[in-house]
Amino acid sequence: MSVFLVGAGPGDPGLITARGLELLRVCDVVVYDRLVAPELVDEAPLDALRIAHEPHTQDEINALLVTHGRTGRRVVRLKGGDPFVFGRGGEEVLALAEAGVPFEVVPGVSALSAVPAAALIPVTHRGLASQVTVVSGHCAGEETPPDYAALARAPGTLVFFMALRTLGSVVDGLLRGGKAADTPSAVISRGTRPDQRVVVAPLAELAGAAAELEPPALVVVGEVVRLGYASLEAAQMLTSLSVA
Amino acid sequence: MSVFLVGAGPGDPGLITARGLELLRVCDVVVYDRLVAPELVDEAPLDALRIAHEPHTQDEINALLVTHGRTGRRVVRLKGGDPFVFGRGGEEVLALAEAGVPFEVVPGVSALSAVPAAALIPVTHRGLASQVTVVSGHCAGEETPPDYAALARAPGTLVFFMALRTLGSVVDGLLRGGKAADTPSAVISRGTRPDQRVVVAPLAELAGAAAELEPPALVVVGEVVRLGYASLEAAQMLTSLSVA
Repeated sequence: MSVFLVGAGPGDPGLITARGLELLRVCDVVVYDRLVAPELVDEAPLDALRIAHEPHTQDEINALLVTHGRTGRRVVRLKGGDPFVFGRGGEEVLALAEAGVPFEVVPGVSALSAVPAAALIPVTHRGLASQVTVVSGHCAGEETPPDYAALARAPGTLVFFMALRTLGSVVDGLLRGGKAADTPSAVISRGTRPDQRVVVAPLAELAGAAAELEPPALVVVGEVVRLGYASLEAAQMLTSLSVA
Repeated sequence: MSVFLVGAGPGDPGLITARGLELLRVCDVVVYDRLVAPELVDEAPLDALRIAHEPHTQDEINALLVTHGRTGRRVVRLKGGDPFVFGRGGEEVLALAEAGVPFEVVPGVSALSAVPAAALIPVTHRGLASQVTVVSGHCAGEETPPDYAALARAPGTLVFFMALRTLGSVVDGLLRGGKAADTPSAVISRGTRPDQRVVVAPLAELAGAAAELEPPALVVVGEVVRLGYASLEAAQMLTSLSVA
């Protein structure tokens, strides 16, 4: 094995996997995403080559992984969340496989459930949500917007990644699709990090309530949001939570 | 903090989080699910009280967590996958919050993406799947079956948890709902474990192809399944894979 695609988890450095941390601590090269906790990059050996994704295109990163992987050095590709959930890990795996470079995928804790969990919101709950629909809210121009009418009808929980910039149109789309205006909803900004902020509001008021939040953020729409609120209230932990 | 709900990850003991492992190694009591790797339970101190979920009902487990939590002992509730993705962690959190017992949720790597990843299938992929719908295939009698017509129309990737026993009706439902008979599909049995088995087949042939597999299993339906196959083929790692 020479290239390891490692999920760094949702932000809190303690949420990397034991296996991912072990690999990181003995790597020769670490290629890391902007959203990865600096504490994790610091876990690489002092003499490891550190390459930030930031200035590079995805094609350049693929090429870098192939080049360094071919030398037989232990390369850790440290990706935010899980490599295979909106992480473009599939593209890197295909590039490595096509180039004949050995690789291994080490999954990570995805923001998908960990970020709602940081606001005590379970994405599934017996009798309340046995389905979760996960969508990217970030329409990069070339992609068609999601089918909001279908999403509005989907039972259970909706989770939107990267939806802060497009939150107004997500909310509008869901409301026009028939989603109830008072559906409990939340935006969790910088989830699992020390500067996490959570806003809970009825769907129709969500965009206004979350106007001040910073990316990265996750949007959760559904009855499960109420459970997070109920737990926090019961546990009298409401101090860090804004409720519109 | 006295009760920690810790996600043990999808099977491979290396996929627990660093924070979860740290807590487990200093706990006084560990309450563990049947599907948690025995190697992880062994990480608890020798003198820690070990309680298996198996003979207990969920209500009994909730009561046990409250009772042990109240003594102030460090209790680790070690759950398969992630506590908040089909893990009933929400019920445990509500019980603890209502009883006024301090708790913390430590998310885990969910089977949701980690088990497909173990077959090199990314649940999202640029241009191929920007939506993932996650459903429980285990209809425990009291729950209504999923709306297969809506699921068949949902774009992107479908992931079914606990769907091995009901695989025939899942496939029938999707086909009757209009999903193409040749949609690439996979069943991953005991994913991330040494005895993992993967079956890849067109949707219409999936139930027959997977007839011999053992639970726990995850079902993935969608074009992304082809990518796993493509990567495996390119990497010449096809030995452990059955293709119908």
